[in-house]
Amino acid sequence: MTKENLELLSTNKVRYGGELRKYKFKSAALGGLDSNFNLYLPPQVASGKAPVLVYLAGLTCTEDNGAQKGSFFGPAAAKGIALLFPDTSPRGAGIEGEDADWDFGTGAGFYLNATNPKFSNHYNMLTHVTLELPQILEAADLPLDLSRQSIFGHSMGGHGALTLYLASKTNQYRSASAFSPICNPVNCPWGQKAFNGYLQGGVTEATDQYDATELIKKHKEPVRILIDYGTGDNFYKQGQLLPENFVKAARDTGHDEGQVQVRSQDGYDHSYYFISTFATDHINFHAQYI
Amino acid sequence: MTKENLELLSTNKVRYGGELRKYKFKSAALGGLDSNFNLYLPPQVASGKAPVLVYLAGLTCTEDNGAQKGSFFGPAAAKGIALLFPDTSPRGAGIEGEDADWDFGTGAGFYLNATNPKFSNHYNMLTHVTLELPQILEAADLPLDLSRQSIFGHSMGGHGALTLYLASKTNQYRSASAFSPICNPVNCPWGQKAFNGYLQGGVTEATDQYDATELIKKHKEPVRILIDYGTGDNFYKQGQLLPENFVKAARDTGHDEGQVQVRSQDGYDHSYYFISTFATDHINFHAQYI
Repeated sequence: MTKENLELLSTNKVRYGGELRKYKFKSAALGGLDSNFNLYLPPQVASGKAPVLVYLAGLTCTEDNGAQKGSFFGPAAAKGIALLFPDTSPRGAGIEGEDADWDFGTGAGFYLNATNPKFSNHYNMLTHVTLELPQILEAADLPLDLSRQSIFGHSMGGHGALTLYLASKTNQYRSASAFSPICNPVNCPWGQKAFNGYLQGGVTEATDQYDATELIKKHKEPVRILIDYGTGDNFYKQGQLLPENFVKAARDTGHDEGQVQVRSQDGYDHSYYFISTFATDHINFHAQYI
Repeated sequence: MTKENLELLSTNKVRYGGELRKYKFKSAALGGLDSNFNLYLPPQVASGKAPVLVYLAGLTCTEDNGAQKGSFFGPAAAKGIALLFPDTSPRGAGIEGEDADWDFGTGAGFYLNATNPKFSNHYNMLTHVTLELPQILEAADLPLDLSRQSIFGHSMGGHGALTLYLASKTNQYRSASAFSPICNPVNCPWGQKAFNGYLQGGVTEATDQYDATELIKKHKEPVRILIDYGTGDNFYKQGQLLPENFVKAARDTGHDEGQVQVRSQDGYDHSYYFISTFATDHINFHAQYI
């Protein structure tokens, strides 16, 4: 991956200081398609490298939703943390049916590597987020310390944050947090649809790799996880999120409140109005570790 | 306008307390089309009526952009101000050509009342904002004091805020402010296109009613106006905003810095990243008067 491949599309001065940049590059992980990401650089990069907190967005979203609606810049500027906002899927792969549903295909990559041959050339968001983007950022000589990364996300992106954190063999991320995450996707309709579509082995193949509740059962080492969800969230009520399953699995495996904190927030829903309300808590949580 | 016509589509708990509601109703001003608006109610409505600050969004926007990206709720909660977010145009009028351009027709109502017969049945955002929405809110028995209103907006919505404020015969709004407003639309391409399309008399008809720079020349009474624009704003550089013309007209008419403050903000652009940076300043400005 060379620096020349990276194109700066725009740069914005933002509230509380710092700068938001939008980049485009040809993504090898996504089968050579153009892919965008946003990068927030806090004011502190004037005098040194910033650690990186990765934000994974939810179904139907792009690299813009978290940047525009998350209210993350204030606390990130206060703590000197850079924010990386990847897209949520490849764009324009041209695979039959990929634009038919809002919860599968475009905008719904689920942060996995597809093994179904129909999707495996393009739908590799796991590699895109964990390997390709860090390589791109390193090659670009940006003022980032990529040895200090943490990860958070919303809904499908909360699933992504928890699973990439728990499944990493290299402890790539120091901590993980999530707003309204899909905690047990092998047991909910969104996850089952995604896994049966993207993976040759379907839900069975997903269980070991892409399900936060299953992953924490096998994760004996200490973890640093914070989760918030709202009791007014319709997707929670419909059984798409299943945070209780994750809490039970965590506790059964010996992860106490100090390691896995799951907070039920009264009356809040699934929107960015909810996320922005608890944004500072999440940034400050990660600031302890990166 | 009856209360029965008003449908609550959703309600969100938001950051800093308070509640955002989205409503739908059949708008007489817009020719009987369904129209949405958002309403932010600050926590203080638990113990009394809140004054209303109207936010008018810019080209291509809806009632959601300001609510989602403006960072207005924090300062509004601090000051006990309700925020009303109207849409920017009628939707689905079915007029030939209304969806062809991003800067005319749908999403581009320019806060005027059309006189061109092709548009005059539907494109009446002036009446919608100044008369119809207050009537709807009054009829709904919401905890609002509509005798205390101010108005602000962005770009096309900044034009709307300034012109509705300056043209009101009843001093409906106590103060006006704008981010990157179109200050002299009869002299810029966006304004000329809109006026020549919506108004039978074109730009000539607009000059007396819908141009902030022309209006302030005839406005001898004291005014309360705050404007911010960014020097990195491409639309400013292209001559769509023309704040200098407004400042000159204001000063020539005797409105000093205490009445008309226009601030050039170094390096900022036309986006909501800019708006959110100065959101608190604008809310606090209006809080002095409502």
